[in-house]
Amino acid sequence: MGIKVTILGSNSATPAHHRHHSAQLVNVEGRYYLVDCGEGTQLQMKRYKIKAQRIDHIFISHLHGDHYLGLVGLLSSMHLMGRKKELHLYAPYGLSEIIRVQLKYSETAFNYEVIFHEVDTESHRVIHEDEQITVKSIPLSHRIPCSGFLIEEKVKNRRIIKELLPEGLPVNKIIQLKKGQDITNESGEVLYTYQELTKPPRKSYSYAYCSDTRYDESIVPLIKGCDMLYHEATFLEEHLDRASTTFHSTAMEAARIAVKAEVGKLLLGHFSVRYKDILPLQEEARTIFKNSHAAIEGKSYILDD
Amino acid sequence: MGIKVTILGSNSATPAHHRHHSAQLVNVEGRYYLVDCGEGTQLQMKRYKIKAQRIDHIFISHLHGDHYLGLVGLLSSMHLMGRKKELHLYAPYGLSEIIRVQLKYSETAFNYEVIFHEVDTESHRVIHEDEQITVKSIPLSHRIPCSGFLIEEKVKNRRIIKELLPEGLPVNKIIQLKKGQDITNESGEVLYTYQELTKPPRKSYSYAYCSDTRYDESIVPLIKGCDMLYHEATFLEEHLDRASTTFHSTAMEAARIAVKAEVGKLLLGHFSVRYKDILPLQEEARTIFKNSHAAIEGKSYILDD
Repeated sequence: MGIKVTILGSNSATPAHHRHHSAQLVNVEGRYYLVDCGEGTQLQMKRYKIKAQRIDHIFISHLHGDHYLGLVGLLSSMHLMGRKKELHLYAPYGLSEIIRVQLKYSETAFNYEVIFHEVDTESHRVIHEDEQITVKSIPLSHRIPCSGFLIEEKVKNRRIIKELLPEGLPVNKIIQLKKGQDITNESGEVLYTYQELTKPPRKSYSYAYCSDTRYDESIVPLIKGCDMLYHEATFLEEHLDRASTTFHSTAMEAARIAVKAEVGKLLLGHFSVRYKDILPLQEEARTIFKNSHAAIEGKSYILDD
Repeated sequence: MGIKVTILGSNSATPAHHRHHSAQLVNVEGRYYLVDCGEGTQLQMKRYKIKAQRIDHIFISHLHGDHYLGLVGLLSSMHLMGRKKELHLYAPYGLSEIIRVQLKYSETAFNYEVIFHEVDTESHRVIHEDEQITVKSIPLSHRIPCSGFLIEEKVKNRRIIKELLPEGLPVNKIIQLKKGQDITNESGEVLYTYQELTKPPRKSYSYAYCSDTRYDESIVPLIKGCDMLYHEATFLEEHLDRASTTFHSTAMEAARIAVKAEVGKLLLGHFSVRYKDILPLQEEARTIFKNSHAAIEGKSYILDD
């Protein structure tokens, strides 16, 4: 599997129509990354049977309540459920103070370390890297400092052609082949080339999360060609004025960004409470970008071969 | 109607078994008072069709997250839904800073005034009074400063005996009778006594909310004879040690307080996540106090004639 994005919240501002505040679980080959954490995210995770303790990295786009108010509750639950391993938090300036003040008055010290990483919301740079992925900030244009996140898989290992593999080949040799190294004997003679026993690695996928933002073409080069883009679509084009004044986007604007950035798939979310039915937003986006989808809570959007 | 208490959350620490963090709506003849506001309270209010804007007074017992983490979200929603009228918040020292820090980073100013009332958690005194009720603090014994709340209805008006009422009696005269004043003519002669046209007022009810606390008999005189007591019952008596070390109570201890205080009815809540089934807590309390009830979310407990 490549990247699996599960929508935990898709509404903006206030929860309504059984839709919740922004939160998404990004699962990259079994590793969990949480992106935004609106109020009730821990309840949504329970509903969809997602184990909170598997999350080691949480990315918060900005400090409007609908994007982080579930965080202290989630961190507290992790503590109460016995967490010991460290947790990394990536957010704009201010989140550490917000959490610190609350822990001060509740006289709580977590049994695990929370490591804050302040995200510079004005630059596009690597903010996290592990064996699997690289995460880069995406400067967004909102009423307060706000950053999107570009999650890119690293180049994967080559894939073994099982039926060609010589019997009894030790594991370390198989790993060598996967990394694109030939197998030699002690005198350095090539016994098997990696080309004959492996096929190229599967595609490495990329996912861009852009919420909240007004229409801003400056993100286009940063997300160019990504496999899936989540772009906020708070309003329909008929409410473009409202989108402008609140620094939000319309579904049409989200689709325009998708077209210009030549992304594979567009996910729409952060819907205004005024829309009970979100299909018109999807339809609007599809008029210019066919592979557009209004994000459904509980549904997973998968990038895979 | 007298007092109607609707349970919005009944679990402690972390939400589990479809139970939520502490919150209760207290409805006194159509006026709404919110007591505690754990994460997701606004979602629970939507579920049970409770209009948030009708709430003008919110009482927070203490600053453990499971009792207030839904507050900023609720206040923000009130703002976004157009609230203009002021809101009163009663809580121990610290809540105003917690809210202020969050509004600072979200660069938000509500369109209505939030008036903070700091509750002295070490004294039993009137913290709110209006035409209908008096609310007094109840010092509780918990790990951090914590206050319960005693809500007492004021003496109600006498009740008109409709069939005896002279035809055409103006409204202001009827109000006089309800207040226990005779009706006189211009020269001061008594035309009707209030005794002949009215019967005594209905009973004034009282409700005590005591969460979180360890077993502490010092609250007994403060809640003596109240019609309904909500007392936390985090554990069964078999986990008394755990209750002691965490400054919580068992169901048996809650019942002991109910017996000593001679209350009318006992509501149990703030259940530990370890109990999927809460009936054993109710059964334990009933062994010494028969009118004990494990609080059920969504259910209303009514004090009325």
